[in-house]
Amino acid sequence: MLNPKLRRELIELLGPNRLLTSREELLSYSFDATAGVNGRLPEAVVCPQNKAQLVEVVKVAARHQVPIYPRGSGTNLSGGTIPEAGGLVVLTLDLNRILEIDDDNLTATVEPGVIVQSLNDAVAPLGLIYPPDPGTVATATMGGTVAECSGGLRGLKYGVTRDYVMGLEVVLADGSLVRFGGKTVKNVTGYDLTRLFIGSEGTLGLITEITVRLIPAPESRRSLIAVFDSVEDAGKTVSAIIKNRVVPATLEIMDRMTCETVEAFAKVGLPPGAEAILLIEVDGAPEPVERDAQTVANICQEHRARQVRLARDEADRDRLWAARRAALPALARLRPTTILEDATVPRSRIPEMLCSLNEIARRYDLLIGTFGHAGDGNLHPTILCDSRDPAEMERVHRAIEEIFRAALSLGGTLTGEHGIGLAKSGFLEWEFGTEGVEILRRVKEAFDPGYLFNRGKMVPFSPGKSA
Amino acid sequence: MLNPKLRRELIELLGPNRLLTSREELLSYSFDATAGVNGRLPEAVVCPQNKAQLVEVVKVAARHQVPIYPRGSGTNLSGGTIPEAGGLVVLTLDLNRILEIDDDNLTATVEPGVIVQSLNDAVAPLGLIYPPDPGTVATATMGGTVAECSGGLRGLKYGVTRDYVMGLEVVLADGSLVRFGGKTVKNVTGYDLTRLFIGSEGTLGLITEITVRLIPAPESRRSLIAVFDSVEDAGKTVSAIIKNRVVPATLEIMDRMTCETVEAFAKVGLPPGAEAILLIEVDGAPEPVERDAQTVANICQEHRARQVRLARDEADRDRLWAARRAALPALARLRPTTILEDATVPRSRIPEMLCSLNEIARRYDLLIGTFGHAGDGNLHPTILCDSRDPAEMERVHRAIEEIFRAALSLGGTLTGEHGIGLAKSGFLEWEFGTEGVEILRRVKEAFDPGYLFNRGKMVPFSPGKSA
Repeated sequence: MLNPKLRRELIELLGPNRLLTSREELLSYSFDATAGVNGRLPEAVVCPQNKAQLVEVVKVAARHQVPIYPRGSGTNLSGGTIPEAGGLVVLTLDLNRILEIDDDNLTATVEPGVIVQSLNDAVAPLGLIYPPDPGTVATATMGGTVAECSGGLRGLKYGVTRDYVMGLEVVLADGSLVRFGGKTVKNVTGYDLTRLFIGSEGTLGLITEITVRLIPAPESRRSLIAVFDSVEDAGKTVSAIIKNRVVPATLEIMDRMTCETVEAFAKVGLPPGAEAILLIEVDGAPEPVERDAQTVANICQEHRARQVRLARDEADRDRLWAARRAALPALARLRPTTILEDATVPRSRIPEMLCSLNEIARRYDLLIGTFGHAGDGNLHPTILCDSRDPAEMERVHRAIEEIFRAALSLGGTLTGEHGIGLAKSGFLEWEFGTEGVEILRRVKEAFDPGYLFNRGKMVPFSPGKSA
Repeated sequence: MLNPKLRRELIELLGPNRLLTSREELLSYSFDATAGVNGRLPEAVVCPQNKAQLVEVVKVAARHQVPIYPRGSGTNLSGGTIPEAGGLVVLTLDLNRILEIDDDNLTATVEPGVIVQSLNDAVAPLGLIYPPDPGTVATATMGGTVAECSGGLRGLKYGVTRDYVMGLEVVLADGSLVRFGGKTVKNVTGYDLTRLFIGSEGTLGLITEITVRLIPAPESRRSLIAVFDSVEDAGKTVSAIIKNRVVPATLEIMDRMTCETVEAFAKVGLPPGAEAILLIEVDGAPEPVERDAQTVANICQEHRARQVRLARDEADRDRLWAARRAALPALARLRPTTILEDATVPRSRIPEMLCSLNEIARRYDLLIGTFGHAGDGNLHPTILCDSRDPAEMERVHRAIEEIFRAALSLGGTLTGEHGIGLAKSGFLEWEFGTEGVEILRRVKEAFDPGYLFNRGKMVPFSPGKSA
């Protein structure tokens, strides 16, 4: 329940329509896109209209020692926006202005509520792109993708969000506004707080302004599909492409179960009985693109692809990629609950990781379809289950632990692009060790000693433990 | 003077030959490549032979509360390796093994003492490059360039050190070894401590292992020189190139004084009387490289270049770049003391910054030659003076302050690639504000509450101020 004094202060600040407290509204903001993680009702949802209001909300909440849960579009996949300790959900969706597109310096400066696709739409007429492209590009906010360091399909060639954010303005726990970085390509003034905030999951401060780097759109692109009778061959093809010094923009894999489900759902013409398919796109200037596409096709054939087909034209290309985009919605139809993991390994270890995933599915008697960004070693094993079945969910949770163990034992990481949030915070020690987790906690407290921001995420709520 | 107990422990640990304490030796490590900053004698210089010894040195120093000054080749330009509080200089030069070159994942893992050029030499036969290329590439260590987030000539297209480091192993102030990041392209596990350490100037911990990303070497390249009668025209050409969606690998500028000095020194055939020249290289696949070179040449001509010349062949190209490489040594011959600044602005503000520099040189009656990475907005105004002349040095220091003010007022930063170190720590508040500097201090203390590492750099030595 919202403390009446806090309620009065927030209404005075924002007006009555920008404070949501009905049960239906609180329920709507009690969860995000993460399955298998319990939701939690916030005490209220606040919708600041501009930066000044956002800063004041932080000051009011800090005074009342009520935690703040920043939220954009709620597409998070690690429980990152769930109001774990109640408190206030702070919606940034109305801070949605593109403040500047600077064509001379190839930068854009935006507020945190701008949708990623809106930024791309705004810069497209200038022949520019903002490369990070999470699957949720049409709904996710810039603030959310910066806070999570979102990845996506173009990571292999173009990198991820951290490679494009040049400067930030943030509001800290004491309500002060601070700027890090800016529009210069080079900047080594002070610690790299810009990158520290990227991927900090809203636990260090609230982002109020973002300056990103734009790049010229590639002139041409060429897509192809390669069908394999063995996961091993597909995995080795991935390494061989890189070894031949071709760096595709996108290099995706879908396993047998994903292919069959996609075909049943979307009828895109995927061949039956394939153990794995690779979907590959190269882009750049026309001549090297043609050469690279041919090189990739040859490498696929040398690695025993049963079928290799270059997209004939843009429409054909779009059909191929529609198959990839259908992977998650198609799999999600099979069972009531869809748990999307993002175990990530060095790309050379993909065949081993795929074998481990099949073995884990068998051992725990679970339905797991796997697709993902093979070029990044970033796989999305997708566990299809029913959250109302406690016995099955127990098997799911044990399987997830084994997936993490497998990824780490192959030199990988707990999460490539979905974040730690609530879902994986219990596993951090497996990767960082106790000393490493202790350092994470000290960094958190250097910025936010009262655990005001996104309390309970990334590191456990343990204020003053270091003192 | 070295405490006798500490001396005994270090000799026991390293043997007598790896502890340097003679006055000549201490003098040699009392300064680095930074002019205009006072040196300071360390109490001893220690040369660990391997990681195990390095870790033990940290533990011994921590027990004795004696500060540690990490040092590679000492090419630092902001006083970053000067033992400001005495203590131990710890040389990493003997930790110089390339531990792995992973051709499947396009990564290399090295010890901190590996010279940057040695890594490039090792990967060249595989058709790969490690792109960061500070001017000191032939002497600087990987550890030093990571600690300083070194930039260099290829920043515009390829980025800087932070864009290539994927994982680190570091030893913390309590002697524990921790790993962050790794060989996966995507990794969002925990805060981004890898990037926080990059550019942290050895103040948070000692780097013991570095995993970097390699990329395929560009197939071809084309260089050209353009000669301008006005700095304004040269500056506008820089923006126009980018606006035409050409991103050169290198886009360098030299002002009139630099050109004349280089020509007098090196006789490379630079035309007399030019106000500015641009040296530009595009690289990539052969066809787009030819097109881009022609586009760039046309843009230079449209912006009233007096002369535009494409390098005929590789030998001709090397001659052009020899002129650029001669800039600093040529200028340095003019006066006894060379102070190399790195005021950095958004690239569209280069003409204004160049005008400011000329104005500042006139006002303070100083000799300033300017060259640098125009494509990055990263200029190197080089002040030629005599450190034995107190009146002149007073003018130099006031001029430097004005250079910083000018860069910041144009949306720039205190330092693009040389670091804060000793030289600029007093100016941090100008860019970060008091709240921002306070945050830097809290980050420092989260890792190193006793100010063991590089005490006096980046943030003032003020232990426990936050308590």
